[in-house]
Amino acid sequence: MARYQIILAYDGTKLFGSQRQADTRTVQSELEKALRRLGWQERSVLLAGRTDTGVHASGQVGAFDLEWKHSLEELVKALNSNLPADVAVSGAKIVPDDFHPRFDATSRRYRYRLFSQPIRDPLRERYAWRLWPPVDAEALHAAARFLIGKHDFAAFGTPPRPGSSTVRTVMKTEWQQQGNEWTFEVQADAFLYRMVRRMVYLQVAVGQGKIPAQAIADLLEDRTRVAPAGLAPANGLTLVEVTYPV
Amino acid sequence: MARYQIILAYDGTKLFGSQRQADTRTVQSELEKALRRLGWQERSVLLAGRTDTGVHASGQVGAFDLEWKHSLEELVKALNSNLPADVAVSGAKIVPDDFHPRFDATSRRYRYRLFSQPIRDPLRERYAWRLWPPVDAEALHAAARFLIGKHDFAAFGTPPRPGSSTVRTVMKTEWQQQGNEWTFEVQADAFLYRMVRRMVYLQVAVGQGKIPAQAIADLLEDRTRVAPAGLAPANGLTLVEVTYPV
Repeated sequence: MARYQIILAYDGTKLFGSQRQADTRTVQSELEKALRRLGWQERSVLLAGRTDTGVHASGQVGAFDLEWKHSLEELVKALNSNLPADVAVSGAKIVPDDFHPRFDATSRRYRYRLFSQPIRDPLRERYAWRLWPPVDAEALHAAARFLIGKHDFAAFGTPPRPGSSTVRTVMKTEWQQQGNEWTFEVQADAFLYRMVRRMVYLQVAVGQGKIPAQAIADLLEDRTRVAPAGLAPANGLTLVEVTYPV
Repeated sequence: MARYQIILAYDGTKLFGSQRQADTRTVQSELEKALRRLGWQERSVLLAGRTDTGVHASGQVGAFDLEWKHSLEELVKALNSNLPADVAVSGAKIVPDDFHPRFDATSRRYRYRLFSQPIRDPLRERYAWRLWPPVDAEALHAAARFLIGKHDFAAFGTPPRPGSSTVRTVMKTEWQQQGNEWTFEVQADAFLYRMVRRMVYLQVAVGQGKIPAQAIADLLEDRTRVAPAGLAPANGLTLVEVTYPV
């Protein structure tokens, strides 16, 4: 028996999030089902990041204990042939017995895609938020800069347990443009529940001129401030990477 | 009453091709359903290119006669609010009464995406063919060059009517690489049924070293030659553009 760490990729469109829930297809339940076909009998697998219904991942991290007599390559192959088409394992390694993908993680990186266009685009909307009117580049960059650093992000999401800390450290926020497409990349030590989608929603409000960039700074400095309610849609969001101490 | 030309985009994954068929969702049936909600009472719409089940489009062209008292912009909006999420109209204009999107077209352009990777990737496989082993760049380019020009493409597909000509003129074939991703772009006056998928399949066979590039040239010169049977999967293919005389 050894503990295995795996990298998971999934198209979240038809998955009810990452965490197991009764009678729904989730990343956890699909992974556990595939593992059981390989003789796994434990109670549950561990996942690094909780992702909502519709959120995608290219670098989710999972861990489980398994009795496996073959190579890591064969483990990946065996899991992939037992997983559904929208979930895949891209790598596996053996880790110390006490490895925990969530508690041991030092940072998470998410990517959010959007594009501005008045007309629907069936070929892009599965993985990106279509919005209109377009966003102003300067305003987006200004908003993003305010988010960097150690702040109380209470206005941006809820903590894993009610009452626990809402302070998080954001190491990187970056908007990149290509034509009418925008990609937001954000890395933090950890995220509050729905924090990335809230960050994107408020930055887009700045980019569309609905609120000033300064409103982002005010929200971070003064917990009593009220921001426009709303979330960027789940389909634009992808969990890209989870990092661990080397 | 006037004749309208529209540009259609669709995600073909859940569509049974472009042409109307009893009791199935097709591009034609969805468009006709949307038009009927706008008071359209004709028998059928016209489409430029026949696309198979699972094939996508960003530039399919359709035409229909309609009594419409509002602007073109409002027609696009009205159609889009009556079309399902996987089909959209991106533009409309009024054309002469005898315009026919298929017979008047002077060329069609298709794009085929693929990537080489031993492991499944749920975030890319909806719009690209995953293959392994990887393809050799030189071999692909060599194979693509043979396809350019006026040839008898009988080994690459079937004509619209049995017995009609299988001669087509290919103006452009181009493979572009980005990391492990490849895009094939091909433009011709017209295509035989399944011709692009067959072209891609045989070029990949060359790229993977299964047949020599010369085999492509031989197939075009000698109708009695036999080539490996097979088609590149539909999900990698997108109809990008249909052109008309200006």
